Amino acid sequence: MTETAPTVGIVMGSDSDWPVMQDAAAVLEEFGVSYEADVVSAHRMPHEMIAYGTEAAGRGLKAVIAGAGGAAHLPGMLASVTTLPVIGVPVPLRYLDGMDSLLSIVQMPAGVPVATVAVGAARNAGLLAVRMLAAHDPDLTERMRAFQEELRSQAHAKGERLRSQVTGGSPSMGFGLGR
Amino acid sequence: MTETAPTVGIVMGSDSDWPVMQDAAAVLEEFGVSYEADVVSAHRMPHEMIAYGTEAAGRGLKAVIAGAGGAAHLPGMLASVTTLPVIGVPVPLRYLDGMDSLLSIVQMPAGVPVATVAVGAARNAGLLAVRMLAAHDPDLTERMRAFQEELRSQAHAKGERLRSQVTGGSPSMGFGLGR
Amino acid sequence: MTETAPTVGIVMGSDSDWPVMQDAAAVLEEFGVSYEADVVSAHRMPHEMIAYGTEAAGRGLKAVIAGAGGAAHLPGMLASVTTLPVIGVPVPLRYLDGMDSLLSIVQMPAGVPVATVAVGAARNAGLLAVRMLAAHDPDLTERMRAFQEELRSQAHAKGERLRSQVTGGSPSMGFGLGR
Amino acid sequence: MTETAPTVGIVMGSDSDWPVMQDAAAVLEEFGVSYEADVVSAHRMPHEMIAYGTEAAGRGLKAVIAGAGGAAHLPGMLASVTTLPVIGVPVPLRYLDGMDSLLSIVQMPAGVPVATVAVGAARNAGLLAVRMLAAHDPDLTERMRAFQEELRSQAHAKGERLRSQVTGGSPSMGFGLGR
Amino acid sequence: MTETAPTVGIVMGSDSDWPVMQDAAAVLEEFGVSYEADVVSAHRMPHEMIAYGTEAAGRGLKAVIAGAGGAAHLPGMLASVTTLPVIGVPVPLRYLDGMDSLLSIVQMPAGVPVATVAVGAARNAGLLAVRMLAAHDPDLTERMRAFQEELRSQAHAKGERLRSQVTGGSPSMGFGLGR
Amino acid sequence: MTETAPTVGIVMGSDSDWPVMQDAAAVLEEFGVSYEADVVSAHRMPHEMIAYGTEAAGRGLKAVIAGAGGAAHLPGMLASVTTLPVIGVPVPLRYLDGMDSLLSIVQMPAGVPVATVAVGAARNAGLLAVRMLAAHDPDLTERMRAFQEELRSQAHAKGERLRSQVTGGSPSMGFGLGR
Amino acid sequence: MTETAPTVGIVMGSDSDWPVMQDAAAVLEEFGVSYEADVVSAHRMPHEMIAYGTEAAGRGLKAVIAGAGGAAHLPGMLASVTTLPVIGVPVPLRYLDGMDSLLSIVQMPAGVPVATVAVGAARNAGLLAVRMLAAHDPDLTERMRAFQEELRSQAHAKGERLRSQVTGGSPSMGFGLGR
Amino acid sequence: MTETAPTVGIVMGSDSDWPVMQDAAAVLEEFGVSYEADVVSAHRMPHEMIAYGTEAAGRGLKAVIAGAGGAAHLPGMLASVTTLPVIGVPVPLRYLDGMDSLLSIVQMPAGVPVATVAVGAARNAGLLAVRMLAAHDPDLTERMRAFQEELRSQAHAKGERLRSQVTGGSPSMGFGLGR
Repeated sequence: MTETAPTVGIVMGSDSDWPVMQDAAAVLEEFGVSYEADVVSAHRMPHEMIAYGTEAAGRGLKAVIAGAGGAAHLPGMLASVTTLPVIGVPVPLRYLDGMDSLLSIVQMPAGVPVATVAVGAARNAGLLAVRMLAAHDPDLTERMRAFQEELRSQAHAKGERLRSQVTGGSPSMGFGLGR
Repeated sequence: MTETAPTVGIVMGSDSDWPVMQDAAAVLEEFGVSYEADVVSAHRMPHEMIAYGTEAAGRGLKAVIAGAGGAAHLPGMLASVTTLPVIGVPVPLRYLDGMDSLLSIVQMPAGVPVATVAVGAARNAGLLAVRMLAAHDPDLTERMRAFQEELRSQAHAKGERLRSQVTGGSPSMGFGLGR
Repeated sequence: MTETAPTVGIVMGSDSDWPVMQDAAAVLEEFGVSYEADVVSAHRMPHEMIAYGTEAAGRGLKAVIAGAGGAAHLPGMLASVTTLPVIGVPVPLRYLDGMDSLLSIVQMPAGVPVATVAVGAARNAGLLAVRMLAAHDPDLTERMRAFQEELRSQAHAKGERLRSQVTGGSPSMGFGLGR
Repeated sequence: MTETAPTVGIVMGSDSDWPVMQDAAAVLEEFGVSYEADVVSAHRMPHEMIAYGTEAAGRGLKAVIAGAGGAAHLPGMLASVTTLPVIGVPVPLRYLDGMDSLLSIVQMPAGVPVATVAVGAARNAGLLAVRMLAAHDPDLTERMRAFQEELRSQAHAKGERLRSQVTGGSPSMGFGLGR
Repeated sequence: MTETAPTVGIVMGSDSDWPVMQDAAAVLEEFGVSYEADVVSAHRMPHEMIAYGTEAAGRGLKAVIAGAGGAAHLPGMLASVTTLPVIGVPVPLRYLDGMDSLLSIVQMPAGVPVATVAVGAARNAGLLAVRMLAAHDPDLTERMRAFQEELRSQAHAKGERLRSQVTGGSPSMGFGLGR
Repeated sequence: MTETAPTVGIVMGSDSDWPVMQDAAAVLEEFGVSYEADVVSAHRMPHEMIAYGTEAAGRGLKAVIAGAGGAAHLPGMLASVTTLPVIGVPVPLRYLDGMDSLLSIVQMPAGVPVATVAVGAARNAGLLAVRMLAAHDPDLTERMRAFQEELRSQAHAKGERLRSQVTGGSPSMGFGLGR
Repeated sequence: MTETAPTVGIVMGSDSDWPVMQDAAAVLEEFGVSYEADVVSAHRMPHEMIAYGTEAAGRGLKAVIAGAGGAAHLPGMLASVTTLPVIGVPVPLRYLDGMDSLLSIVQMPAGVPVATVAVGAARNAGLLAVRMLAAHDPDLTERMRAFQEELRSQAHAKGERLRSQVTGGSPSMGFGLGR
Repeated sequence: MTETAPTVGIVMGSDSDWPVMQDAAAVLEEFGVSYEADVVSAHRMPHEMIAYGTEAAGRGLKAVIAGAGGAAHLPGMLASVTTLPVIGVPVPLRYLDGMDSLLSIVQMPAGVPVATVAVGAARNAGLLAVRMLAAHDPDLTERMRAFQEELRSQAHAKGERLRSQVTGGSPSMGFGLGR
């Protein structure tokens, strides 16, 4: 977490979500975006949750990333009490592979959107927050462009490794059958 | 709605849910259980929703029936601010046949249960509330028993009608094929 | 299990469901609610199952918690022969992540409701039974309120731990890419 | 329904299932297999349902066809109280396209099988009953063989019609695009 | 496998299905029903598969149990070339938890039924075959009844063990919270 | 479309998506946010699609809303060539209720996020774009707050209407049974 | 259907599939690819189906397009008896939106592939056959390129129409709320 | 990889897909079909991806096999810029068992088909490419026929082993019950 006033809030229903959600924090650090992280449970501390959302914009946050699993109400409830964009991360639980988390977050009624990312994709939630900020920050835009360039370079390097690894096999005639 | 102080609260996110939810009201009337019905939207009036849940027990309600669709947060959020049993009705929306509503309501985290009924089954939500009350009310128990007896009689009558209707066909030899 | 006459019945189709269902028992003990636990299989001992349900209210039970997996018929069948509220716990089996158990329990026809909780959520089933009792018991209501306060305190503590743990990281410039 | 003692029992939870289930009756008539049809609701008349299953074999039935929808318990409960093969027909309800009915019927626990057919496939349920009988009845085997031959003939005729209908189109050069 | 001419054929697409399918064989042995087991792949040896099905009834088999996974075509294809009842066992593969296997087996078109059991439930497939035979064999009916009685006894014993194990706990006041 | 340079781009794979996507345009007009709307098909004009995304930020757009159905690749592909936040709207097609559209849009790999909204929820996509802009625009924040206040007022009015409509029914004793 | 010897075979389980499958025929006509269309049912005429597949390559066909619904076995069974590429079209039936058809066709075991297209996408099946042929036919490649160019032109035209239609709206201040 | 100019291109979004995709390479080697393998990410190097597809046919490739997971856009995007048949392999990720990958690949809009194989079935993707080539190559057809014969032989051998292994068990009378 950076020393400056936080720009992005990362909240989750329980600290058991932190192993997933810390990817959002990591990517914000990579981009030099200040953030705060907290446990804000919609179901266990609803009043504090309402307060967190209500005060978020006034405290200078520009976006909120909220992770939750199962009947995941945190992102949607925060979205109902803030004017900020809320990014929802469906945290997968033991059963159902996060499908319940995904539907509980993404299927919001008209009027109250949540920007939903893939199941367990807290890193992408962080990157989405960076993009939102970058749209108003040329320097951050430049860093996002560099990041995308880096992604491309790494993919190129992987391709090179693969091409060199898969070179020169001669066709075998015996069929490698089996299930 | 009966004149006496309401025993059961029936709430929903929008009056567009009323065509589904009125079945709960109807069954409570059949059993002579007083109730109130209101629009309490988790996403459009979160503070009032929190207030409704917080005050529900103190106002004399013994159970709350909450219907919602899509990312259905109303039943679970009410459950988090009341000690009363909350019965959730997954209201089906235009797409996904209510599967999103069902998972958003039933998959609550440990600590905050919602008593979930079938997709669109507001009538059963009302009957579940009656059972909760009947467990502490011999008269209501008697009426529930009579209701179940009536269910049985009606099923018997249906069986009789079917048996008389399906009588005496002689086997035909021509095969009635087709898809 | 308490010494007094049981208030809640916890039943399941096989003792292999006990590792899941014991969470219901544990929470009832925490709240000082007497209970009994038994194997009552809809498919292997249907007559005893019918008898259990038929006699439940007369024996003083106020609610029945029934856990079952796969084509889970126990909660619904008990609901058809008792006037008590029946709480269904979808026990997940080896395949399908409990989706079959959930649908088999929650999708009851009109007339016979089952109060369904999340897949594997026996603890919440216990808490739901406590809420049903608490609606008619000020002392139990007070304990439920204390329980919810305790939930909030624990969530607060988790937040504090997380906030202290995530303090003061300085932004790194190297992108931590990867899949 | 034939005049002789019934060989197959066709039962369903409500007469509203009859439009689906009558296909089973129709096919039994085509094969000259005697049957009876009745409403036997697992949830609305559980005692009669248990009685029906318990007495089915003694009354001379050789198979039972049971249709039910949603949390469909009728086929499995009958299977638990009879030694006869029980054929389950998942009746589709308004939502979920019969997936709940299918899983509630097919996912039976070890020890108590239900022979499940496709969603809404009462005709195939009747044909399955015929096959079970035919395995011990050369005459019925012969009729099943004739039925299969008829199926083949009809498919041939359809092919012929289609081949004549699709003859002689000349290729057009203008692309018929569109979504 | 018994020495006498086989009454039931157990076939599967690959010997990798045997760990699942052997449960069908085991239960047939328990009931003294003769059987044969073989690899008959719809996709790898289609002509032999057609031949197997075509000759099955003539060779004295009374039922065929077929297990297959994924795009599971074996049960349905056998059903199309025999008059015998075919019992389909959806074998779960590495992905999708057997849902593909289940739908590929159960959703047969009108005219050609497959008696489908639960995902991986080869034991129940065997029991279903026994029921089909028992409907025409008083001795086997008696054994099925004894089997069901044994199921009940075992369930009773499990209940007794559970009841003794869960005796006498005194209510604890400290809440055992946590996710 | 406003006269000023567009701030938000609304694109879709075909004009057949416009009946869904126009809700995004409508809400932007309500908030006085300038926008452009265009057909940009990932599969039918991939080069133009790449160009659109590559130039979007340079042309002054602050966010892109992309709607697509089925194997919906437009939002994700645009996200890969722009630094702007991309909001994806899963357009439901004739089959599968938009579940394929949803998964194709939301399940993006690490590095390239798409802000996904509910199936068919173009209105929420527009509102999400407004929130992103409002985080950097006090005036727009104020309008979003007014919008949320209006949502609350409307919900209140609905509640009032419902409460007056559901007044004074007296309990009926005859059970209104049925399915 | 062209006069020359057919290059592509279009087969389906029933003529009721023709309304879907004729899109494949239409596109082949557009490209001047000769074809034949026939009813070849895996379940109703298995021997003819086996024969059709076995002889397909020898008769000069270069690809087979097979449509089927539900437990759709036709594409996979044909693939097992031909060396030709088989293209499978999942035909949606009344329930389950073609998900059963899709899984039954695509989830083929190792050794026997089926080239599966989208639910109901017979047009794409035809285009896939054209691509297979075009890879060995420069003229057809050219036509496919022209077709793709035409697709692009049409998309452009749609975009132009949309852009002109959505011009010049001025922002309205009244919020158009509602569900 | 063979020395000659490649006939088939195998591409994937990341080298982490290689453990799945190498099965395609292996089968091409078995059949003596030259190929190339590369990392071509739709999301991380979109321009190179477009270039790869655009040039594929001109470089002499006859088919492209593309593997991708999650919101899998690679196969469909390549199909939009080449006239070659594109074979899509849904790579399963950590959650959702590849269902997202499957739908993202198979549900392509009209005009741009992808030949989709089973989840994780890269081996079948290779075999499908061989079939496409074999339709224009008698020698390869012969090898495919030999391959299918070998599949049959192996299945026969498995059947023999199973038959010998399952010989001679005598029926046991004690029921092997249990879940």
